[in-house]
Amino acid sequence: MLEHFFSPKTIAVIGASREEGKVGHDLLKNLVSYGYTGTIYPINPKADTILGIKVYASLKDIRDTIDLAVIVIPAAFVKHGVDECIEKGIDSIIVISSGFKESGIDGAAKERELYQKIKQHSIRMLGPNCLGLINTQSSLNASFAADMPAEGNIGFFSQSGALCTSILDWSIIEYIGFSKFISIGNKTDIDEVDLIKALEEDTYTRVILGYLEGVKNGTVFIASAQKATKKKPMIIIKSGGTTAGAKAASSHTGTLAGSERAFDAAFKQSGILRANTIEELFDYARIFSYQHLPKGPRIALITNAGGPGIITADAVERSKIKMAAFSRNTIETLRSFLPEMANVYNPIDVLGDAKADRYKFVIEEVVKDTNVDVILVILTPQTMTEIEKTAEVIGEISHRTDKTIVTSFMGGKRTESAFKILAQKKIPNYVFPERAVSAIEAMYHYTLWQKKPLPKIEEIQIQKENVSSLIKKLRQAGHPQLNEEEVKEVISTYGFRIPKSILATSEIEAVKAAEEIGYPVVIKISSPDILHKSDFGGVVIGVQDPSEVRKYFRDITQKARRLMPDAEIKGVLVQQMVTGGKEVIIGMSRDPQFGPLLMFGLGGIYIEVLKDVTFRVAPIGSDEAKEMIQEIRSFPLLKGVRGEKPADIPAIVDSIIRLSHMVTDFPEIVEMDINPLVVFPEGNGAIAIDARISIS
Amino acid sequence: MLEHFFSPKTIAVIGASREEGKVGHDLLKNLVSYGYTGTIYPINPKADTILGIKVYASLKDIRDTIDLAVIVIPAAFVKHGVDECIEKGIDSIIVISSGFKESGIDGAAKERELYQKIKQHSIRMLGPNCLGLINTQSSLNASFAADMPAEGNIGFFSQSGALCTSILDWSIIEYIGFSKFISIGNKTDIDEVDLIKALEEDTYTRVILGYLEGVKNGTVFIASAQKATKKKPMIIIKSGGTTAGAKAASSHTGTLAGSERAFDAAFKQSGILRANTIEELFDYARIFSYQHLPKGPRIALITNAGGPGIITADAVERSKIKMAAFSRNTIETLRSFLPEMANVYNPIDVLGDAKADRYKFVIEEVVKDTNVDVILVILTPQTMTEIEKTAEVIGEISHRTDKTIVTSFMGGKRTESAFKILAQKKIPNYVFPERAVSAIEAMYHYTLWQKKPLPKIEEIQIQKENVSSLIKKLRQAGHPQLNEEEVKEVISTYGFRIPKSILATSEIEAVKAAEEIGYPVVIKISSPDILHKSDFGGVVIGVQDPSEVRKYFRDITQKARRLMPDAEIKGVLVQQMVTGGKEVIIGMSRDPQFGPLLMFGLGGIYIEVLKDVTFRVAPIGSDEAKEMIQEIRSFPLLKGVRGEKPADIPAIVDSIIRLSHMVTDFPEIVEMDINPLVVFPEGNGAIAIDARISIS
Repeated sequence: MLEHFFSPKTIAVIGASREEGKVGHDLLKNLVSYGYTGTIYPINPKADTILGIKVYASLKDIRDTIDLAVIVIPAAFVKHGVDECIEKGIDSIIVISSGFKESGIDGAAKERELYQKIKQHSIRMLGPNCLGLINTQSSLNASFAADMPAEGNIGFFSQSGALCTSILDWSIIEYIGFSKFISIGNKTDIDEVDLIKALEEDTYTRVILGYLEGVKNGTVFIASAQKATKKKPMIIIKSGGTTAGAKAASSHTGTLAGSERAFDAAFKQSGILRANTIEELFDYARIFSYQHLPKGPRIALITNAGGPGIITADAVERSKIKMAAFSRNTIETLRSFLPEMANVYNPIDVLGDAKADRYKFVIEEVVKDTNVDVILVILTPQTMTEIEKTAEVIGEISHRTDKTIVTSFMGGKRTESAFKILAQKKIPNYVFPERAVSAIEAMYHYTLWQKKPLPKIEEIQIQKENVSSLIKKLRQAGHPQLNEEEVKEVISTYGFRIPKSILATSEIEAVKAAEEIGYPVVIKISSPDILHKSDFGGVVIGVQDPSEVRKYFRDITQKARRLMPDAEIKGVLVQQMVTGGKEVIIGMSRDPQFGPLLMFGLGGIYIEVLKDVTFRVAPIGSDEAKEMIQEIRSFPLLKGVRGEKPADIPAIVDSIIRLSHMVTDFPEIVEMDINPLVVFPEGNGAIAIDARISIS
Repeated sequence: MLEHFFSPKTIAVIGASREEGKVGHDLLKNLVSYGYTGTIYPINPKADTILGIKVYASLKDIRDTIDLAVIVIPAAFVKHGVDECIEKGIDSIIVISSGFKESGIDGAAKERELYQKIKQHSIRMLGPNCLGLINTQSSLNASFAADMPAEGNIGFFSQSGALCTSILDWSIIEYIGFSKFISIGNKTDIDEVDLIKALEEDTYTRVILGYLEGVKNGTVFIASAQKATKKKPMIIIKSGGTTAGAKAASSHTGTLAGSERAFDAAFKQSGILRANTIEELFDYARIFSYQHLPKGPRIALITNAGGPGIITADAVERSKIKMAAFSRNTIETLRSFLPEMANVYNPIDVLGDAKADRYKFVIEEVVKDTNVDVILVILTPQTMTEIEKTAEVIGEISHRTDKTIVTSFMGGKRTESAFKILAQKKIPNYVFPERAVSAIEAMYHYTLWQKKPLPKIEEIQIQKENVSSLIKKLRQAGHPQLNEEEVKEVISTYGFRIPKSILATSEIEAVKAAEEIGYPVVIKISSPDILHKSDFGGVVIGVQDPSEVRKYFRDITQKARRLMPDAEIKGVLVQQMVTGGKEVIIGMSRDPQFGPLLMFGLGGIYIEVLKDVTFRVAPIGSDEAKEMIQEIRSFPLLKGVRGEKPADIPAIVDSIIRLSHMVTDFPEIVEMDINPLVVFPEGNGAIAIDARISIS
C-alpha cells in the first residue's frame, strides 16, 4: 500500500530551490543526504543545478517515469503543478505547501478543487500543509525535517507537523528508531485510516504511533484500527478534546456525551492504547518497540536500594499488574547466594554494594521462575555499582529469554552511558520507575486485548416497517420529537417491555381500565401536544381505587384544559404501576465523527450528580454491552449489596443490544433515552417506564 | 538549628581510611575536595596521613574543640566511638555506619543503646545507616555521595540513602541546585521534624523537599509542617503506602481508613504538596526553586505550533488553573504585529517561522496584560526557530517581571543547549508541556494554602466527667464495645441529638411510651448483651398504633428469650421514628502514626460501594469540617438536586467538630461510627440514629 510514497524509484521535487533555509532546498537536501538510492529530479525553471544535481525546467522534460512528486511551491501554483503531474501520469503526490484549509475560506476552496482533481485521476495525495514523510528502510527522507531519525520499528503519523519536529529531535537523544515517519497535514486525501492500513501491512513496523486531532470517518477508523491492533499495538495521543463546546441537547445522553467520550469509547472498542501525554506516548512506544509481550501480569522487582523498591512496589499495587510470588526454589537459591541482609522476596534487594555479577545471578534465577512474567531491574548509582557492566549483563540476558525485561537506572550524569547501552540492547529504560510500571501495564493491557475475540454483532428479529413508516410520517410533518404513543410504538417494536396502558376518554372507561390492569395504577394526561406531563401535575402515581381514579381523571383533564387551552386532550392513560426493581438509563446521541454513541448508567443521582456513565459506539455485541454494565463505578449496586438479589443483568445486556440495533437501523434517530429502564431481580427482566426519542 | 551539623568549624572523621572505595576514604575525600574551609581531623590509629592530612590515633589527641564528629566504623565499635565523643564534649554526631535497626533484632538493640547514650549527654545524632549530609553554602560535603551537587535553594532530606545518590546524579544533568542535602537514615534522633524546622529557618532554602517512608510523631509532624509551609513550599514523596496490610476493624471508618488515607489527610492539613512520583517531586521542586509564585490561576500559552498548543490547552482545562482571556488591548496589539495567519487569542500561535524577536514582542505584551498571571512559552525546534536566542530572550524578560514564566522547549538534540540557558536564567523547562501545566497547578495550589488562615479549633462546653467515669468503668470491666445505652450517654453528652426513647418493661408501659413519643415509633429489644439487634429481628420500625405496639412487644421479647436464652432482657425501647432527611456517616479510627482520623461520607451505598469518603486528622476546626463535606463526590446530593432543599450543612459541621472534640478528649476511644447521622433540611439540624464506640 502507498508503495510509491514509501519506496519510490524516482522522485520529482517541484519547487526545488537553491536558497538555503527555503523548504524547497531543505527538502531536496534531505533527499540527497541520507543515502536514498533512487533518482531525484529537481524541477525549477530558473536553475540549472542544485546541490550538484541537474535541474529540469518542467516535468515534461523528464523522460523517466516518476513514481512520486513532491510539491513545494506556493499554494497559488499548486493546482498547475498537479496538472503537470497528471499529464506526466504520476499517481502519488506529496503537497508540502501550506495556504489551504488551515488559512481560511479561500484556501479551503483551493483544497476542495485540488481534491476533486486528484480523485478524477485516481491520484493519491499526502498533505497539503505537511512536513512530508520519511522511510528509514529505503533511506528516504522526503521531508523538510531538520534531521533523519534512526532506523527502528515504530511507524509514526502526526496531524501536527511541528510536533513531528519536536519528536524527531527528542528521539535522537533517546535512541528511538522509526520505520516510517509521516506528517499527514490537512489529510485531504490520505488520512489516518490509509496510514493505519499501510503501517499494519508494513513488515518493518512493529508499533503504530499517532497524534490525532480528529478522525475523518469514525466507523471506518474503528474497523481498520480493530483489525490493525490484533496484529500490532497502536498508541495514539488525541488532543483537542476538552474544549469541545457544549451543544444544546435534549436528552441525558446528549448532555453527557461529547467528543471526548466518543473517542474514549472508540479507542476502547478498537484496542488502541490512548496516551494521555506526549511523554506517555513515547514511554509506551519504547517498551513495545524493544520488548516481548508479557505472558501475564506477574512482575519481579530487583533493586539495589530499598526506597526505590518500595516506591515501585507501590506503583505496582496501584496498577493492574501484580507482584509475583517466587517459587520456593527461587527463594532458596537466592537466600543461599545473596548476603544475609538482602531481601529475597519481591522486591529483591541485592543491596547497595551489588556489582554486575550479583545482578546477573539474581536476574537469571528470576528468569527461570515460572511464576514471573516481567522483570523490572532498578539500579541506583552507588559507589560500588558497576553501572555500564550491569547494563551489558541485562542486555545479554534479555537476548536469551522471551520474558519482558525493563530497567529503571535512576540517575543522570553517571548513568548516561548505560542509557545508551540499554537502548542498543533493546532494554527500555525509565529514569523514574513509576513510568516503567505504567508502560508495563499498558503492555499487559494490550495482551488482554489481543486475546479477546473481535466483537460479534448478534442479529435480532424486528418488524422494522412500522417504525420506518412512522418516522417517515413524522419527518414529513416536521415533528422532531416523538410523543408518548409514538415512542411506545418504536420501543415495543424493538422488543422492549413497556407498562400496560389503556387510553380512557371518560371516568367510566378509566375505572374499567384500572380494573383490567389491576390496582394501584398511574394516571397520566394523554395529549400529543403535551410533552412534559409531570411539570404541570399531569401525572398521578399510586392511584388505589375507583373513587381515586374518577377524582384524578377529573382533576387532570380540567387542569390540562385550563393551563394548556390549545392542547388537544385525548383523555387519560391508565397505566400499570411498576414497583420494585432498579432504575437504569440507556440512551444514545450521535457524535459528529463516530455516529451513534450508546450510553449506560444507573438512574437518578448516579447519572445526574456522579456522572457515572459509560459509552460505546454502536453497533455493539453482547460482550461489549456486558463490559459497559461492569464498567460503571456503581456496578456493585446491580450485583446487589447487603444480601440483595442481583438485578437481571442479562436483561440489561439485551436492552442495550436492542437499542444498538434500533439506532443503527434508523440513522434518523439523533438522540434518545430510555429513562428509567426498571430492572428486576435476576430472571425477571426489565421494563421501559419512560423514553424520549428525537429524529432529524 | 543544628548549627554544628551544617556549619561546623572543626570536623573529626572517626574511621577515616586510606583505602580507596572504602566509605571512610570517600567521605574524607568529599570533605577535602569541595572547598570546605574548616579544619578536618581524620581519626585512625593505624595511619599517619591520609590525602595529605595528618591523622590522629584518637579524639583525645586533638587539642582543638570538635564541632562535628562523623563516625564511619563498623557497627560493633560505634558505641566506643560515641563514648570518646562524649569524653571530648562533642555535641553533634553523624553515624554513617549501618548494622543497626535495619539489620534485625541485635542491631535494633544496639541502636536503642546508642540513643540512650546520646540523650543522656544531650548530643544530637544524624543516622545511623545514612549517607551523611551536604551543605553547599559552606562547601561542606560530609557524605560518601559520588558527587557534590550545585549550589541552589532546594533543601532535601531523604529516608533512603540510595535515592539520594540517584537524585544527586540526576540533578547534575538537569542543572538543579541544592542548599542542603541530608540523608536521615534510621532517624534514631534527628528526624523529619528536626529537619523541617532547620530548613524552615535556613535562609538559603526556598523549597523543602523530602522522601519519607513514615513519620515518627504524626501530631508534631503536622504542627511543624503547618508552620513551615506558611513560609516556604514543602514537597514530599511518601512511599510504602498501599502495602499496609488490612487490619481487623469493627467500624466502617476503620475499614476505610489506612495509613495512606492518614498521610493524605495530614499532608492536606499541613499544606504539604504530595508528589506521587519521583518525577513529580522534581518537576515541582524546579518551578518553586526558580520562579515567582503566581498571583492567580490565569495562564497564557504562547506557541510556535498548533498541535502542542491544543495539547497544552487540554491539560489546562483538566487542571485547576484557567486559560486567561486577554484584554482587548493585547489582542489588538498582537493582531497588528503578528502575521495574519497567527492566532492572537489564547493559546497564541506565533507560527512555525517565529524567530526570537517575535517571541519577545508577544511575551512582553502578554506580561503587561493584567488578565494574565502565568505564561507558558512552548517552542518546537522548526527549521527557522532560533532556539538558544529565544531562551535568552525569555530569561531576560523573566528577570524584569514578577509574573511566573515557564517554558516547554520540546525537543532533544537541538534544544539541549537551550535547556542549559533556561536553567541558568531560572526558567523551569519541561520537555513535555503537560508536565509544565501540572507543576504550575501545584504552585497555584500552594498559593491558595498560603492565603488560608491556619485552622482554629473552636472550644465547646462539655460535661466530660460522665464520659470519663463511664469509660473508666468499662475499661475496668474489660468491655471494649459500648452498648446502646452507653453509646447514647456518650454522644448526647457531646451534644448530639438522639431520637426520643423510653424503656418499657411491659406492654402497658410500651403503649404509654409510644403515646408520649407520638406514632409511628420504632420498637427495639433492650439488652446489654445483644449488640446486633436487627440481625435476629429485634427491631421493628413504623409501628403505627397501640395494638401493634402490644403485638411487637410480645414478638420481640419472646424471640429474644428463645434465641438468646442467656441474654439479660430489660424490655423494649420505644423510640421516636425519624423520617426524611439524608443519611451521612461520621466516624473515627486511630492511625498508628497520626492518631485520631476523622471520616465523613454519605450513608449507605455511597460509603459501602462507592467509598466516597474523606478524612482529616483530629482535632480540626469548622473550616476543615466544611472542606471535608464539600470534598466528597456526592456533595451535590447534600446541596440538593432537582429543586430539593439543601441539607443542614452547618449541623454536619457542628457534628464533625463535636466528634473531633470527643476523640481528642478521650484517647481511649479507638474506633467509632455515628451511622447514620440523619441530616434534615437547612435549619432543622441533624440527629444521630445509631452509633458504635470501641474503647481500648
